[in-house]
Amino acid sequence: MKIGLLGIGTVGTGVYEIINGEKGNYFANTEEKVHITKVLVRDIHKNRKTQIPSEIMTDNFDDIINDDEIEAIIFVMGGMEPEYSYMLKAIERKKHIITANKAIVSEYLDVLLKKAEENNVMFLFEASVGGGIPIITSLKETLKINRIDEIKGILNGTTNFILSKMAGEGKDFGEVLKTAQELGFAEADPTADVDGYDVSRKLSILSSLAFGSHIKDEDIYKRGIRDVTKADMEMFSDLGYVLKFIAHSKLENGEYCASVEPILLSSKNIMSNVNEEYNIVSIHGNIIGELQFYGKGAGKNATANAVVGDLLYIINNEYRKEDIHLKNKVISRGIDKFSGKYYLRVDVSNHDQFSQVIDLIDSYSKFKKMMVNKDRIFVVTEEINANVFNELTATLKEKGNKLFYARIE
Amino acid sequence: MKIGLLGIGTVGTGVYEIINGEKGNYFANTEEKVHITKVLVRDIHKNRKTQIPSEIMTDNFDDIINDDEIEAIIFVMGGMEPEYSYMLKAIERKKHIITANKAIVSEYLDVLLKKAEENNVMFLFEASVGGGIPIITSLKETLKINRIDEIKGILNGTTNFILSKMAGEGKDFGEVLKTAQELGFAEADPTADVDGYDVSRKLSILSSLAFGSHIKDEDIYKRGIRDVTKADMEMFSDLGYVLKFIAHSKLENGEYCASVEPILLSSKNIMSNVNEEYNIVSIHGNIIGELQFYGKGAGKNATANAVVGDLLYIINNEYRKEDIHLKNKVISRGIDKFSGKYYLRVDVSNHDQFSQVIDLIDSYSKFKKMMVNKDRIFVVTEEINANVFNELTATLKEKGNKLFYARIE
Repeated sequence: MKIGLLGIGTVGTGVYEIINGEKGNYFANTEEKVHITKVLVRDIHKNRKTQIPSEIMTDNFDDIINDDEIEAIIFVMGGMEPEYSYMLKAIERKKHIITANKAIVSEYLDVLLKKAEENNVMFLFEASVGGGIPIITSLKETLKINRIDEIKGILNGTTNFILSKMAGEGKDFGEVLKTAQELGFAEADPTADVDGYDVSRKLSILSSLAFGSHIKDEDIYKRGIRDVTKADMEMFSDLGYVLKFIAHSKLENGEYCASVEPILLSSKNIMSNVNEEYNIVSIHGNIIGELQFYGKGAGKNATANAVVGDLLYIINNEYRKEDIHLKNKVISRGIDKFSGKYYLRVDVSNHDQFSQVIDLIDSYSKFKKMMVNKDRIFVVTEEINANVFNELTATLKEKGNKLFYARIE
Repeated sequence: MKIGLLGIGTVGTGVYEIINGEKGNYFANTEEKVHITKVLVRDIHKNRKTQIPSEIMTDNFDDIINDDEIEAIIFVMGGMEPEYSYMLKAIERKKHIITANKAIVSEYLDVLLKKAEENNVMFLFEASVGGGIPIITSLKETLKINRIDEIKGILNGTTNFILSKMAGEGKDFGEVLKTAQELGFAEADPTADVDGYDVSRKLSILSSLAFGSHIKDEDIYKRGIRDVTKADMEMFSDLGYVLKFIAHSKLENGEYCASVEPILLSSKNIMSNVNEEYNIVSIHGNIIGELQFYGKGAGKNATANAVVGDLLYIINNEYRKEDIHLKNKVISRGIDKFSGKYYLRVDVSNHDQFSQVIDLIDSYSKFKKMMVNKDRIFVVTEEINANVFNELTATLKEKGNKLFYARIE
């Protein structure tokens, strides 16, 4: 089968190397060969370190779309445009699509699945969530037999690296972020990672498949991890908790809640021991119960492995309609179905402020525990609804208090 | 598609209920229906609590094998014979096979795969390892792109339940085993579970697929968990370790080691937090890195889900040859490639014995730590080869010492 490749960055290079490296059973035993015959790049004259022959490079997408021998196109460019327009054109020209682009999949999943079905081609996106973890495939397989009502996981390597290092080395957020940036684990602008936009796109994709309805990124509650401090981390350790940046969605009677926020887990929770750049996803099916999948959430080889896995699926299977349909009617309930005990740290600068803060918290919830250390109040509340607790913290912020909080699960 | 079902115990009943319950996308959306048209039972007159119509039951296997409309047979009877002979006959009659029988798969995997290929039928056995965890499918998919050189996991719910309870509730082995038996989590004769025979069959199946060579049960080193005591468990907790019953196989340059034995994991290890009846499997591929899969290792619905998953694979795919071949030449090196620090507890009854034991241990390894509590010596050794350490413990046992030991990972 002849393949077009759009983008020859880290993942694209990895894909090229796997296909031409002849590792694993498929590439070792098969007689049918897979050939990448065209590679789209922005600048064909740029000096590259890859082994890719220059004669297969082009800077013109039409060279690929008009090549009738190319049956499948791999999209690993990143960005919304022109990639999305190219995808639509490619589907119209009856080419199978494989992509790692979570932004496009999250935003246009319904359109792309429908268009692929109309044109009898496959639209596959395993690499868009969880790097090398085979979560999309596993989710689809599980859904054939089960209804899935809950998804939970750690889906961002950068923030998991930051939280692991803060917990392990007793350093502050800014310091660890800087290290992560120097090591290339975090972007110069870390917003997409640390404020939850990357994770919520991934949760949007998984929840859409699981709940059978297009759950859009904007319907997912997001709260980042910028405000957590060394003092918080020490307190978590004393209390037997581990802070993780958790994506979570839940469906009940046609209503769903979906959130991306810092959550305190018991140190006995499996996810508490998922560190550094690793990801984990838990799904719950009505028959199979809970399944969890763990692996490298990013990186050249793991992500390229997911892309090539999709490609082999296309090569090894006749085209057939997806079992996945986004036709269910579900209603967003924000974060209204989430509740639990909360950890809250508020910085105070004098005695009056101290009393005001205590009184305000007390008006929302009794304390299970309270500790005071210099100019910081640490509280663990009784069980309280997530929306109600957000009201409390919004009020505290309005009054100018610096704080951090996380629900305990 | 019409199906024959051999065995209507717990898993068989679960399979029947899933297929006729119309849950999940496949059974909800498909027009092609799956029908179990014949069920083999030992006694058709026995009173059963299931909803299965008596007219589809038979006590004669020929009724199923001679039914040309039946395209696939599900084997969930347990036991080697007559099930294995039935399987061979069914393959000869061009029927696809799905089985949960790990004893047969472990013993005859090479014969059955070859025979299935000769007869152009599928031989699938997802339910034979790890209950509802999709480990066989995931392993096959990973192998298409990767070479797999290591498998590690918790593969037995009964022993994991026992170890979890011992650690959590401070009870002794015998006491917890009795509870497990009363709750139906352990058999009246617990040998297969607690001495590792159940786990080693599962490791044999996974290792055979991973290493591309039939690794037989008898080539796997087994050491059970009967000798662990409450005193050991308290010591593990103090030292920051968790004891798990671990299956482990490793391939290096065509030589493999495979073992089933109690292992001490850091409490920060993901597997340390896998409790009760849950299982976990880790695989390591040369491209994808480490993947882990977690879920219910046994039980009616989880195992039945795995069986029905295999059935849907047959229904949804044209027959094609397996990518899996057991043609590699690999040599067993026993446990020679395993080494590490060891925990060792030896009971002593007087001062002379105390000195002898200490001298003997000292002649094998320097102590990293030594503690004495009443009539027990607890030692943590330097790194030492697994075979060498087994020599030491064999000598201690010959001298009549009661002991327990586990490698630290």
